[in-house]
Amino acid sequence: MNEVLNSSAALDALARIVGPAHVLTDPALTAANLEEPRGLYFGKALAVVRPANTREVSGVAAFCSAARIALVPQGGNTGLVGGQTPDASGRQVVLSLQRLNRVREIDPLSETMILEAGVTLAAAQEAALSVDRLFPLSLAAEGSCTIGGNLSTNAGGLTVLAYGAARDLTTGIEVVLADGRIVSALSKLRKDNTGYDLKSLFIGAEGTLGVITAAALKLFPRPRSRATAFAGLADPDKALALLQLARERFGQGVVSFELIPHIGLEFVFAYRPALRNPLSGRHAWCALIEIASQIEGGLDDAMIDLLGAALERGIVEDASLAASLDQREAFWAIRETLPEAQKPQGGSIKHDVSVPVSAVPAFLREATAAVEAFMPGARPVPFGHLGDGNIHFNVSQPIGADTEAYLGQWEAMNAVVHEIVARYGGSISAEHGIGVMKRKLLPQVKDPVAIEVMRALKRTLDPNGILNPGKVL
Amino acid sequence: MNEVLNSSAALDALARIVGPAHVLTDPALTAANLEEPRGLYFGKALAVVRPANTREVSGVAAFCSAARIALVPQGGNTGLVGGQTPDASGRQVVLSLQRLNRVREIDPLSETMILEAGVTLAAAQEAALSVDRLFPLSLAAEGSCTIGGNLSTNAGGLTVLAYGAARDLTTGIEVVLADGRIVSALSKLRKDNTGYDLKSLFIGAEGTLGVITAAALKLFPRPRSRATAFAGLADPDKALALLQLARERFGQGVVSFELIPHIGLEFVFAYRPALRNPLSGRHAWCALIEIASQIEGGLDDAMIDLLGAALERGIVEDASLAASLDQREAFWAIRETLPEAQKPQGGSIKHDVSVPVSAVPAFLREATAAVEAFMPGARPVPFGHLGDGNIHFNVSQPIGADTEAYLGQWEAMNAVVHEIVARYGGSISAEHGIGVMKRKLLPQVKDPVAIEVMRALKRTLDPNGILNPGKVL
Repeated sequence: MNEVLNSSAALDALARIVGPAHVLTDPALTAANLEEPRGLYFGKALAVVRPANTREVSGVAAFCSAARIALVPQGGNTGLVGGQTPDASGRQVVLSLQRLNRVREIDPLSETMILEAGVTLAAAQEAALSVDRLFPLSLAAEGSCTIGGNLSTNAGGLTVLAYGAARDLTTGIEVVLADGRIVSALSKLRKDNTGYDLKSLFIGAEGTLGVITAAALKLFPRPRSRATAFAGLADPDKALALLQLARERFGQGVVSFELIPHIGLEFVFAYRPALRNPLSGRHAWCALIEIASQIEGGLDDAMIDLLGAALERGIVEDASLAASLDQREAFWAIRETLPEAQKPQGGSIKHDVSVPVSAVPAFLREATAAVEAFMPGARPVPFGHLGDGNIHFNVSQPIGADTEAYLGQWEAMNAVVHEIVARYGGSISAEHGIGVMKRKLLPQVKDPVAIEVMRALKRTLDPNGILNPGKVL
Repeated sequence: MNEVLNSSAALDALARIVGPAHVLTDPALTAANLEEPRGLYFGKALAVVRPANTREVSGVAAFCSAARIALVPQGGNTGLVGGQTPDASGRQVVLSLQRLNRVREIDPLSETMILEAGVTLAAAQEAALSVDRLFPLSLAAEGSCTIGGNLSTNAGGLTVLAYGAARDLTTGIEVVLADGRIVSALSKLRKDNTGYDLKSLFIGAEGTLGVITAAALKLFPRPRSRATAFAGLADPDKALALLQLARERFGQGVVSFELIPHIGLEFVFAYRPALRNPLSGRHAWCALIEIASQIEGGLDDAMIDLLGAALERGIVEDASLAASLDQREAFWAIRETLPEAQKPQGGSIKHDVSVPVSAVPAFLREATAAVEAFMPGARPVPFGHLGDGNIHFNVSQPIGADTEAYLGQWEAMNAVVHEIVARYGGSISAEHGIGVMKRKLLPQVKDPVAIEVMRALKRTLDPNGILNPGKVL
């Protein structure tokens, strides 16, 4: 089987493994898998194959490995860096994990659940709530993204500060290797020191080392109360001081700490006039803070105390506490509308970066100045998860500029920003991964020996190069 | 250089790298490095080499790789499974990391610190406290064990429930590879999705994949208050119910939840009569619970409420709150004396196991019955970290039995207990690692494909097999 099979023989073989109904080649049926929703990345495929279970995934991998057919694992197809999209050759097979969507087990006493890769994040959250537990991972695409995709990209989102990213939330995985062998490591254990941490290697590897088919995930006690506030601040240094004050008072109870610049609010209120600014005055920056507690009452008072102390010390200029669930949702709607609200403002060049938390203010100052020097009139809209040092340093085009010409500067502007990120020991992909989009950038920012080790691991685990080739490395 | 050098040429070469004063061959100087403190594991060595910095470690590795001389990395020499001890050949080099003991950086705002491998855990805790932060890792050997050893064994200890084990507490590492190349990945970032998670691969690998020379570690806000209680319970099911109640009320504020059987208390009070039982009655089991909070006061009241509710629901039979710091220490002294208190009771066959938290009561029932059936009169003393499902299932010899004959049953009794552990999806080494001690057991309990992957990774990263050979795999 070492020679390349002809297409129809390959399709027949795949159909024998997953059933003919699950080898899709009709463009009407495959279109949604071949292009990601924004239309930035698209490709062709020999077929979209939809196995029903781990055994079938194993069969597909074993066949494709022998036949040297590349596999592109895909979950909810919501990734932002092209990691889940086949190339233009039409010779790759998209391996959709969406039919592996069983909740295999929920164990509230052990605070774990075992889910298959195709379970959506929203369904995972629901499964946890059904036993009065919290699965804390939360991000914009949660309605359609899947656990397999979340793990393959080590998804972060809004609660990393308190609970960690996908890798931190996983105790075990089941993985199909390139040649079809199955690693059964669905451990529910909190402590296990029997050998190398294989789990962490496959998580965040974007499907290039193996195909994650199921995971044992951590649950947490469901918080009994939340308090949410919006604060106006003079600058990111003050935001950092507020974060520190909140961490001192609430520790891991600080669930989210989001930073929003004034221009971000302007964009949001222009795009969604129904949304209201929680603060009356004009503030250069705002912070959206959420704290959570296992105790039923008293959290609003604790938040008011925090904001009072911050006002007194000159850290915040003004603040507003969400007085109802509706108000809480309205605060969050501002934050969640931000990415979309940039669209009517023309082209936006994105940077999903992180720096050490203490370096965020200096990074923001330098990057803003550098971008404005690089292109006068360009409008930085840096927002994001200050608590994790993860800033979405998006830059909207100058007013009236030609969008296409502006977007033509994408790489050049990236270079300006990433140089500063690198100087602060930061990351050019804090949460979205590398995929196709940032593959060429990796050697510029990553330790060369680390890249050599990554390549060696790739060769070891995928010697025929069939797992998501052209991604990451 | 591919042929084996003669010893004196090798020693000369090593002396050129680290200086003659740091290539120890005098038995008076090397004895402490060649045997672990309990005397269970000991060996010989060509030399004990003490590099001063990462560059020297790199030089030693490059030389030894070319000369095919095995390296045995060593920190504080406190490991319990022989992972840090050279074999009997006298041809291995012990690579002591103790001179790499600089605190390179502390960044309280980012809640990180960068330490070299030879910094002791106690010094790491002190460094954190010096900036009003907590480094939560805590275990019996903290005065002498080192960060390098802690990471290489993914140390757990008393606070895993709230803060995780060593791997969870690390954001980046610096590693010297087998051939001397240095992976510089001392990231302080909370979010970074640029490629494979190399850090997690080297952490817990017991020095078989690389030599960790420095680490970027997570800090936490220092808790402002703690409450500690001792509760008497009828059985482990009740302990689990109390744990669940505590998690519901305090979430990640539950820092420790330790389980102790009545026989453990008997051993402790016989060994240290000065220690007092916090509870007057006789209870089949006790739990030592500690909660922590960022808020100054009120935690004792919250603990009393918890214990009151547990009494009311029939979960606990009696409980005592530590009313002072002295009392808190006295409670902890009982738990910490337990391992030592088994010594006067004769031979003790140990099992450092974990099972899913929900399975602990059933595991304890079955393992106790199986051990008693295997050897009538044997006295199980299972204690440990119920919150993580990690039980030190130690079994003291029958009263009056011959100790040597008893210890001769070590492997047979292990087999009895480990069979039950495996049935519950547990681990035969929850926190101590594999080392030499459990190497032969690994294939019996680990997924065979996982072991194949481990072997492949070992061959990739250490093709000449010079890194801690004979350990783990």
